[in-house]
Amino acid sequence: MDPSRMNPDALKRLNKTELEALCADLRGEIIAAVSENGGHLASNLGTVELTVALLRAFELPRDQIIFDVGHQCYTYKLLTGRDADFRTLRTFGGLSGFSNRKESEADLFTTGHASNAISLAAGLVRARQLSGETGHTVAVLGDGALTGGMSYEGLNDVGNSGLPLIVILNDNGMSISSNVGALSKYLTGMRLSKGWIGTKKAVAGGLKRLPLIGKPLFTFFESAKDHVRDLFIHDKFFASLGFRYLGPIDGHDVAVMEKIFRRAVALNEPTVIHLVTRKGQGYAPAEDSPDVFHGVPPFYVESGEYKEHAAAEYGKTAAEHLIKCQQERGDLCVVTAAMKDGTGMTAFESACPDRLFDVGIAEEHAVSMAAGLARGGQRPVCAIYSTFLQRGYDQMLMDVCLQELPVLFLVDRNGLSGPDGASHHGIFSLSYLRDMPGMRIYLPLNEAQLTAAIDESLNGNSPAAICYPRKLPHHPALAAAPAAPCVTLKEGADAVLLCAGVIAQQGLAAAELLAEKGVSLGVAAVTQIKPLGDGIWPLIARRPCFTLEENVSSGGFGEMLSAEAARQGQPLPRACFALPDGFPAHGDRKSLLRQAGLDPETIAASIMKLLNGGKL
Amino acid sequence: MDPSRMNPDALKRLNKTELEALCADLRGEIIAAVSENGGHLASNLGTVELTVALLRAFELPRDQIIFDVGHQCYTYKLLTGRDADFRTLRTFGGLSGFSNRKESEADLFTTGHASNAISLAAGLVRARQLSGETGHTVAVLGDGALTGGMSYEGLNDVGNSGLPLIVILNDNGMSISSNVGALSKYLTGMRLSKGWIGTKKAVAGGLKRLPLIGKPLFTFFESAKDHVRDLFIHDKFFASLGFRYLGPIDGHDVAVMEKIFRRAVALNEPTVIHLVTRKGQGYAPAEDSPDVFHGVPPFYVESGEYKEHAAAEYGKTAAEHLIKCQQERGDLCVVTAAMKDGTGMTAFESACPDRLFDVGIAEEHAVSMAAGLARGGQRPVCAIYSTFLQRGYDQMLMDVCLQELPVLFLVDRNGLSGPDGASHHGIFSLSYLRDMPGMRIYLPLNEAQLTAAIDESLNGNSPAAICYPRKLPHHPALAAAPAAPCVTLKEGADAVLLCAGVIAQQGLAAAELLAEKGVSLGVAAVTQIKPLGDGIWPLIARRPCFTLEENVSSGGFGEMLSAEAARQGQPLPRACFALPDGFPAHGDRKSLLRQAGLDPETIAASIMKLLNGGKL
Repeated sequence: MDPSRMNPDALKRLNKTELEALCADLRGEIIAAVSENGGHLASNLGTVELTVALLRAFELPRDQIIFDVGHQCYTYKLLTGRDADFRTLRTFGGLSGFSNRKESEADLFTTGHASNAISLAAGLVRARQLSGETGHTVAVLGDGALTGGMSYEGLNDVGNSGLPLIVILNDNGMSISSNVGALSKYLTGMRLSKGWIGTKKAVAGGLKRLPLIGKPLFTFFESAKDHVRDLFIHDKFFASLGFRYLGPIDGHDVAVMEKIFRRAVALNEPTVIHLVTRKGQGYAPAEDSPDVFHGVPPFYVESGEYKEHAAAEYGKTAAEHLIKCQQERGDLCVVTAAMKDGTGMTAFESACPDRLFDVGIAEEHAVSMAAGLARGGQRPVCAIYSTFLQRGYDQMLMDVCLQELPVLFLVDRNGLSGPDGASHHGIFSLSYLRDMPGMRIYLPLNEAQLTAAIDESLNGNSPAAICYPRKLPHHPALAAAPAAPCVTLKEGADAVLLCAGVIAQQGLAAAELLAEKGVSLGVAAVTQIKPLGDGIWPLIARRPCFTLEENVSSGGFGEMLSAEAARQGQPLPRACFALPDGFPAHGDRKSLLRQAGLDPETIAASIMKLLNGGKL
Repeated sequence: MDPSRMNPDALKRLNKTELEALCADLRGEIIAAVSENGGHLASNLGTVELTVALLRAFELPRDQIIFDVGHQCYTYKLLTGRDADFRTLRTFGGLSGFSNRKESEADLFTTGHASNAISLAAGLVRARQLSGETGHTVAVLGDGALTGGMSYEGLNDVGNSGLPLIVILNDNGMSISSNVGALSKYLTGMRLSKGWIGTKKAVAGGLKRLPLIGKPLFTFFESAKDHVRDLFIHDKFFASLGFRYLGPIDGHDVAVMEKIFRRAVALNEPTVIHLVTRKGQGYAPAEDSPDVFHGVPPFYVESGEYKEHAAAEYGKTAAEHLIKCQQERGDLCVVTAAMKDGTGMTAFESACPDRLFDVGIAEEHAVSMAAGLARGGQRPVCAIYSTFLQRGYDQMLMDVCLQELPVLFLVDRNGLSGPDGASHHGIFSLSYLRDMPGMRIYLPLNEAQLTAAIDESLNGNSPAAICYPRKLPHHPALAAAPAAPCVTLKEGADAVLLCAGVIAQQGLAAAELLAEKGVSLGVAAVTQIKPLGDGIWPLIARRPCFTLEENVSSGGFGEMLSAEAARQGQPLPRACFALPDGFPAHGDRKSLLRQAGLDPETIAASIMKLLNGGKL
């Protein structure tokens, strides 16, 4: 790549041929970085021209561009001063895989969750109106983000208030977990062949509404997302909400997009521009399998093959066990929110196609719909990542726990997320789940504990949550642990470290370091946090005790144990090792744990110090 | 009232004249109960005929009826076996003011929060499809509930999946806090005069779409709610989402509604029935001022005057101070979500009309829009009830705290809500706010502390939350407390009780009881929970200590103090008095506190026991 072209000013001086060359370079750079570090590939290859056009038509920082989710902003990073660092993408201390306001002034927000861009942008527009500043605000969102109710709340407010916000809808016919198969490809092909503003001529013709795409094709909906996409293709939806609608437009034609963007600026009213892009554009393996190349581990560029293969996963085990349970019970169903693949539940759908409900990016609805299923006598299992389940906090409280309904939550991606970073860590799980009256909370160490927790939940009659990271731990002591609320993993005479779930691996490593210094630290894993079993008290009765968890300290395991020990007149933890008040960054797990002080070395040193009468 | 008519079977045998008499009786009973106990009046008077028609057309328990929010279900209660107990409405041990599944099998859910009825109903429909049971499911929601994104998520899923759900839209042109004024009345009058299916003739005519109401009138939108209402009057919105739309229909004509309901049953597809009702129908003071009669304290039936007048309120003080701050600063704005009146912020709007943004029932958007305002350089104040702010948990984490933006949350109705009950208590505030990295949390005891907390927040640069109940406490010690993170309210040699905020009133009363028995209990109020000031440690250094809070114990003040004390090597609380794991019911504050063990007598007895070496 030529660094001299990698900024918005230079960009504006390029001619068509030079732009095409630049886009090819950008794609090459994205493929190179992601093949090394992993990341979001297909969506970023799909938004190269869109981003180039945005940076040519708008002027930073006077104008403001916000990417919803922010996983599609690699080109934006490359063109706003971060090209030299781009190969550090998603590594510890390197560039984030999402928009990040600490990285560049071009990023107004640190992002990661879906459907909030319109709301954030609405605030920016209002702030500018109040302060009298000039400029334009653009919110870029994918069609997947439109299934989230929050987008609708934002559209409704913006349309109603007449705020001059430009919403760019990047319609790639995909979401994280596509379940539309052949139909999706068919629709994409159709959009490519007709019905578009894809030529200058059409633009010059005055942006007239194009003939609607044949209605019969749209009567077969498979996914919530397809359904939403249909709304704007028919242009009922946005017009209803008070928006001017422009589209559909070829999202790979820079010149056409620039003209449309300038036209939207001139309109100065709530405007939606509907772009059709192709996920994975320009890289054959990703074009062919955009779902496989949504979020990827490092891969070989030539073949598209992953360099590493995923270890055994909790989700896979859970899905297999749920299939077995359903065969026995007949009343089980699974609800998820655009995380069918990530949670391993595609396997459940294959086995029980009428019993999996993927409602799209709509966690609030997912939780309450599951509550309705439970009230109707079914046994729903709600499989959602910890960080996204935060969206359903009120619904879990009000529609599940207040009703005392036996909804089972499979809280996947619990703990530090690694390279996805700040917005994707599952580090509030224990805190928010513990708030829920009557909720049982499990932290299984291995497959046997996981299936036992599922069985206990399905045989019980109360809300339950089973929290786990993606990968099963590789440690013989954890793998061999029997199913019990509290398990001793290592005996130790001098003190005991109580660990909340799989972070016990770090605890065991700390114990090894301490053993070298002559300190015998016992390590136990607590695998059921609520209700807390009685097995914990004998363990701490005669030795100093510490706690360890991969959760923020506020409302976490250590606080709970401290208060409960005080209540029962038991000895208290001398220290609670937990994540500090804040949002850990992205990077490899080892670096993140070290930064948070939860690596074996720091834990061992802290325990040593405290046992010797020192203070932390 | 004649009890023999008060059930669905008897109801079905009544003729038109008898039905009219019944509806008049129902209104009389509702007015009588609410004038005694307080409650939701206008919405219930508006749904008498609607409920009668529902219970004539549908068959419980085969069919299922869910009221969104559930504040409009008084007629439903009267007609499903709860007429004899109706005068106990909202009293401790009596009937709940919302749907409540512990009260009757006719109530499928215990409700109180908005916009979830479609999701719950979708689960019920799917459960029936999976189990092969027959019957129909009806979700009744007001136009206000449609501003909530969750309703849209539900509609999108139901429409996409073709679930045979009947959604009844009760369009009364009002929400809790109406901000539409003359226009709302004008629109209501227009709907009354034309464009309706209000006669049998029209129904017989085949339910043809009626001429649309003149478009020009609908280009002036004032509120988000009006905007939403426009969508379905034009019938773009529901059709877009895959629903059959029937309406608008007179929601006070039982016969017409019955026919429409049966027609919807026959259609067996996603159907919306748009009813137009009049809030307060049949009671002149409520018809004239439906906003005043939304939620009311006890009142005199003849005059409509309230029997009690609200004490000085935190919200009122906050609004007055914010107006002053805005005059000085110029960058302050207020965001609320259909709680403008309840939070006292109508006064702010009067003073600064362009700086108050009421986004309707849309807490998620409210929080993130406020984040956008802050990012744009304004100082937003987000005034929302504690229980409804639960909806914004993820947005507070991701869009406010992760961005380190100085959004100030005024968390109103903190603590037990009293007669509104389970769904309206603000008893998770400390737990969920403490999870938020960098969030400052205040619990002011009086007006001076409230304004000091506002000043400190507005002069600072981090997210902050100020939690308070509706009414200021009436206690000289609390009223006189200076602005400090920890305030001694009463000296005491034998032990000290640390209280989180205004619950200190109960602490002081407990200390008086203990004084009678010769125990000298000191009482201190902690008015800044996060960060916790150092002032607390000298207080507990030499005396046994206890904590008291009006919050669930999980993640609350007691747990926090226990862990922090252990960390600092300070003496630990001997007991943490907090709300137990559960949802308190409704009733007077005194009864609720006693039930939870937070009344002065129980606190005093527990402390006595512990100081004498006993256990709880």
